[in-house]
Amino acid sequence: MQILVINPNTTASMTDTIGACARAVVGPGVALEVVNPEEGPASIESHHDDALSVPGVLAAVASGEREGVDAFVIACFGDPGLMPARELATGPVIGIAEAAMRTAAYLGRGFSVVTTLARTVGHTEDLALLYGVERQCRGVHATGIGVLELETDPTAYETVREHARAALAADRSDVIVLGCAGMADLGLRLSLDLGVPVVDGVAAGVAQAEALVRQGLLTSGHGEFSPPRRQVMTAEP
Amino acid sequence: MQILVINPNTTASMTDTIGACARAVVGPGVALEVVNPEEGPASIESHHDDALSVPGVLAAVASGEREGVDAFVIACFGDPGLMPARELATGPVIGIAEAAMRTAAYLGRGFSVVTTLARTVGHTEDLALLYGVERQCRGVHATGIGVLELETDPTAYETVREHARAALAADRSDVIVLGCAGMADLGLRLSLDLGVPVVDGVAAGVAQAEALVRQGLLTSGHGEFSPPRRQVMTAEP
Amino acid sequence: MQILVINPNTTASMTDTIGACARAVVGPGVALEVVNPEEGPASIESHHDDALSVPGVLAAVASGEREGVDAFVIACFGDPGLMPARELATGPVIGIAEAAMRTAAYLGRGFSVVTTLARTVGHTEDLALLYGVERQCRGVHATGIGVLELETDPTAYETVREHARAALAADRSDVIVLGCAGMADLGLRLSLDLGVPVVDGVAAGVAQAEALVRQGLLTSGHGEFSPPRRQVMTAEP
Amino acid sequence: MQILVINPNTTASMTDTIGACARAVVGPGVALEVVNPEEGPASIESHHDDALSVPGVLAAVASGEREGVDAFVIACFGDPGLMPARELATGPVIGIAEAAMRTAAYLGRGFSVVTTLARTVGHTEDLALLYGVERQCRGVHATGIGVLELETDPTAYETVREHARAALAADRSDVIVLGCAGMADLGLRLSLDLGVPVVDGVAAGVAQAEALVRQGLLTSGHGEFSPPRRQVMTAEP
Amino acid sequence: MQILVINPNTTASMTDTIGACARAVVGPGVALEVVNPEEGPASIESHHDDALSVPGVLAAVASGEREGVDAFVIACFGDPGLMPARELATGPVIGIAEAAMRTAAYLGRGFSVVTTLARTVGHTEDLALLYGVERQCRGVHATGIGVLELETDPTAYETVREHARAALAADRSDVIVLGCAGMADLGLRLSLDLGVPVVDGVAAGVAQAEALVRQGLLTSGHGEFSPPRRQVMTAEP
Amino acid sequence: MQILVINPNTTASMTDTIGACARAVVGPGVALEVVNPEEGPASIESHHDDALSVPGVLAAVASGEREGVDAFVIACFGDPGLMPARELATGPVIGIAEAAMRTAAYLGRGFSVVTTLARTVGHTEDLALLYGVERQCRGVHATGIGVLELETDPTAYETVREHARAALAADRSDVIVLGCAGMADLGLRLSLDLGVPVVDGVAAGVAQAEALVRQGLLTSGHGEFSPPRRQVMTAEP
Repeated sequence: MQILVINPNTTASMTDTIGACARAVVGPGVALEVVNPEEGPASIESHHDDALSVPGVLAAVASGEREGVDAFVIACFGDPGLMPARELATGPVIGIAEAAMRTAAYLGRGFSVVTTLARTVGHTEDLALLYGVERQCRGVHATGIGVLELETDPTAYETVREHARAALAADRSDVIVLGCAGMADLGLRLSLDLGVPVVDGVAAGVAQAEALVRQGLLTSGHGEFSPPRRQVMTAEP
Repeated sequence: MQILVINPNTTASMTDTIGACARAVVGPGVALEVVNPEEGPASIESHHDDALSVPGVLAAVASGEREGVDAFVIACFGDPGLMPARELATGPVIGIAEAAMRTAAYLGRGFSVVTTLARTVGHTEDLALLYGVERQCRGVHATGIGVLELETDPTAYETVREHARAALAADRSDVIVLGCAGMADLGLRLSLDLGVPVVDGVAAGVAQAEALVRQGLLTSGHGEFSPPRRQVMTAEP
Repeated sequence: MQILVINPNTTASMTDTIGACARAVVGPGVALEVVNPEEGPASIESHHDDALSVPGVLAAVASGEREGVDAFVIACFGDPGLMPARELATGPVIGIAEAAMRTAAYLGRGFSVVTTLARTVGHTEDLALLYGVERQCRGVHATGIGVLELETDPTAYETVREHARAALAADRSDVIVLGCAGMADLGLRLSLDLGVPVVDGVAAGVAQAEALVRQGLLTSGHGEFSPPRRQVMTAEP
Repeated sequence: MQILVINPNTTASMTDTIGACARAVVGPGVALEVVNPEEGPASIESHHDDALSVPGVLAAVASGEREGVDAFVIACFGDPGLMPARELATGPVIGIAEAAMRTAAYLGRGFSVVTTLARTVGHTEDLALLYGVERQCRGVHATGIGVLELETDPTAYETVREHARAALAADRSDVIVLGCAGMADLGLRLSLDLGVPVVDGVAAGVAQAEALVRQGLLTSGHGEFSPPRRQVMTAEP
Repeated sequence: MQILVINPNTTASMTDTIGACARAVVGPGVALEVVNPEEGPASIESHHDDALSVPGVLAAVASGEREGVDAFVIACFGDPGLMPARELATGPVIGIAEAAMRTAAYLGRGFSVVTTLARTVGHTEDLALLYGVERQCRGVHATGIGVLELETDPTAYETVREHARAALAADRSDVIVLGCAGMADLGLRLSLDLGVPVVDGVAAGVAQAEALVRQGLLTSGHGEFSPPRRQVMTAEP
Repeated sequence: MQILVINPNTTASMTDTIGACARAVVGPGVALEVVNPEEGPASIESHHDDALSVPGVLAAVASGEREGVDAFVIACFGDPGLMPARELATGPVIGIAEAAMRTAAYLGRGFSVVTTLARTVGHTEDLALLYGVERQCRGVHATGIGVLELETDPTAYETVREHARAALAADRSDVIVLGCAGMADLGLRLSLDLGVPVVDGVAAGVAQAEALVRQGLLTSGHGEFSPPRRQVMTAEP
């Protein structure tokens, strides 16, 4: 079984973190590849970044599809390109926000998302609505830490932890969801410190992808997600 | 990793079917046990059956908990006893309706549930609402086949298939969910015949349980699902 | 007209309180019987307690049905066994959470529920959703007082009152719902102290049951709530 | 106990029908008065009719309030004037659409409303939404019979019955709600013919009003429904 | 193009304020008339006021309709008489609450309404629900200033501003909606002080009316809003 | 006042149609420019097309922003790039799906969308949900006509008309929304043939943009839609 994990931004160190977290969770016999586009935003912290990352994500999906990849994971909490990727791929495509929020729903009454910048909160709320977890998602809380600062800010963990602790109380929730792929390595420590399950989307996404492949399930090709008509693109003369 | 699958009814042949389907989906290194209570309804086709199956389910969970089981799957589409089981168990507990409906949500625009008797439709609608998949669940369709007749009625498969086909058109859905553990062995054939993904809750539940254990995730003990206070039961003198 | 009120727990003193509150509200000519199961949890403070109380509730319903009871009230705020009881009974079956929340909806803009332990809040929220009063139910507030401590804790009333007062302000609500049958005797005093309507589910349930019988209304036997098929129970050899 | 039933239209024969149905349902010791405004629309079949009936309804409420009436029922399925009436009255005010729809919610999985003209359907849908019964209300079905034709059209009953029968099948519902006070006398016969509960709002409203008074419950005076400030009306020089 | 703006209350100075704000926003070639009823409440601060203003609003609409007015704006944030006005008028009818809330939805993630008395908050919440902006409307905040005091209270602006500022923080919203036609002249100053868009319903309503007329759009006469049947009103002998 | 209309696809003839429809609706003194990207999909009929059109849309917005454009209209019914465009532009940005659906909500009880290919229906449903018009949007109906075939298929109008007629009946709706910018020139004829309002998103979007500019309203720069941080893009060495 071959799973392709795509970091939609172009920061290689973050791709490495994602890869390490992904590898920790897959079962025996699963081949895991982790890539990022060569061009695109260095981090995804706005609708603009999100939109500009999509062509790179779709190119990676198309490439993986040609290589016979069984399932795809888009490893950014905004799930950029998830819908078009499902048109391009035969196997399942999982967004980590989708996977994290649905996974958290199995574990408690409700979850709080702890994320990076306040400007991304609205997009997460939209995703929660579209995925049907708007009741389970009791709050989305920004720490104010930028995506790339997660790697460099020495107080990042403490800031995340204190926001998570406050979120559990304010939201009366019992599960934490990490709202950024760059937080993937904080989950275990946070769970021990807070005494609640902490769901990292990278792990959730990869585990979910593996679970779907084990069941032999593909994205439905029956309608909306059937392959798109190939069009003449004026940009490709 | 040890997963306990509980068939809430007392029909051993159905336990066998469930076990075969569960085994087909787990990864290497997973020990799977499949049990049913000794007492309780022979099939679950009403709220009354559902309620009376719960003590047996909870006894099985308590027993598994003592044996150190890592995760539990309740293999009846009504998810009987799911909430109290989460109080009793340390590891995750998955209901197959919950797992099937959330799994289907990864695969298409919307799903149709094909189930047994019309009287169970309302309960499935309630579960879809509670699990947050009420938009994704575009219809619940009864075939009129009783649970135990699935094993004996020679036209059962054709009836299920034709209801599923009609459901896809009527609901404009692109995924089928099998609404009874007793249909677990029909999924692959149905998928080939209809050309859409068919989600069987037993497979989905077991795969989901394994995925959660791989992530090291437990049910939150933070509040609602912490262990219940032991009470004097007047029935235990 | 004969109404059977079932206290789902086995604590006789609580059955007495429930009976007194029920009697205070019924009209002339209504015969009221109040019972509790001989076996089961002494109080209902978890999903586990709730589930284990159901067989006793259903036995009481079945017994009442044989005696020709006109309507049933299940006097625990979790409404345990409500759905299966509707299958067993010809006349209406009312849960006190359902009755209290729907009654409160006639009286103001929105209500706050004041209840016992925090772990029961989620279940109440689920009921509010299923009953369609999730907007009217503006908050569920735990006092931390256990069900049986309501009878013994000398400060119980003051604690309930202060939580109710805070809830009215925090939720911007204008009605209080008592979230436990064991609070049934606090309603009048609380209403006088707070200056808002206080709905006790026992009174609401009994009054609603009487209202339905006066209208000649029975639970629909058209589908979901028709009598369940009698099954061979392996427990009854 | 004194209950005032207000027919918001000015058709005395309909007031008589309403009175007869109301009297059939109240308990011993309840004094029932049934009135209609002297001025206003002869029937209520549009938003315009509804709006113009409100001053008459409010005048009747104000008059009843001066006489010490304990509860009020507004006997038109559009519930005209319900909100302002709650400001004017000390005791509870019940709209028959509200009462009928909430009553039906106790009796089955979902109900269908059978009403008069198609142009009133949208208003009923708005009420179902505001009252929180939008899921329970599975369809609103117009018969095309005008309000006053219910009394004169010799085929009215058959038309209502056939629309109700079709609605039960199309909506997969198990309860019928009569969507016009002018249908109040059809309920019993319809219930016998269709084999499902049929809820008449007049009966439901009066029974609910009595139930609230028995519980000692008043409309909350805490905020929105406190008495309005008396204003200088330029029309009253 | 002729637009009729109706102030539903009878306070001429408020009609003047509304007119000035309306005139500031219409395009060239639009003839604007602003009227108020001769009889009715001097301000609208309760359901009762709202209901009693409706006959005057409808008379103004009927009069405008006879004069060939192209579109109507009802300039009170409760949108009194909006539905019946749509039956009477051929051209579009816009309520200012509706226009303000839908306009705000184009401008940010979510808006907060700042209004007059706390007792009107519930009605605004109902409107937000009916108009489908309940998620975008993140809070309705009362200042405690009566409608007519907006003109006379020298600290009114400061009070509104501080409530708006607090609302932006508490609701995590990014747009302010003025919840009373009497605040129409505060918008620009408030926007400059707070640094967020401030939507005044009078301006939004008039601009929306003009936009609809430019598109040649009328209220649908297909069903619910077709002209009502003329009825014998017993009040008009 | 300067409004920039962006056709997100690269088909110049469609840009011409959009421009003609846009010009027919703006008021005097509004300068209108209509553009399309030089590169990108020739039509937008899938999530993939939608995603790949976004960079071109954003480039056009950035260019318009530098020229001081007052408002932007994105003239494709999928509203591609709407959210990131709001970050880039100072003035309001309107998507035509958003504008069409909100405009239709002023005109009747509910609307039906008539669109091109079935595979786009799900995306429109998602937009309706995000915009809060999911109740008003009673159905989305595909004609099976591709976007570019709207210009060449001689029976296109008849096909659209018959689907619209059927939709009005099936959905019990009273307004039609045209679900593709390529249908912009069909609105008037369709409205005359069907006797209901027909909303074209291009006209609705341009009229709405003008209305917002007249009110002096900008997109909130308070949070989510403040200008994005400029990032090093690896693609721009």
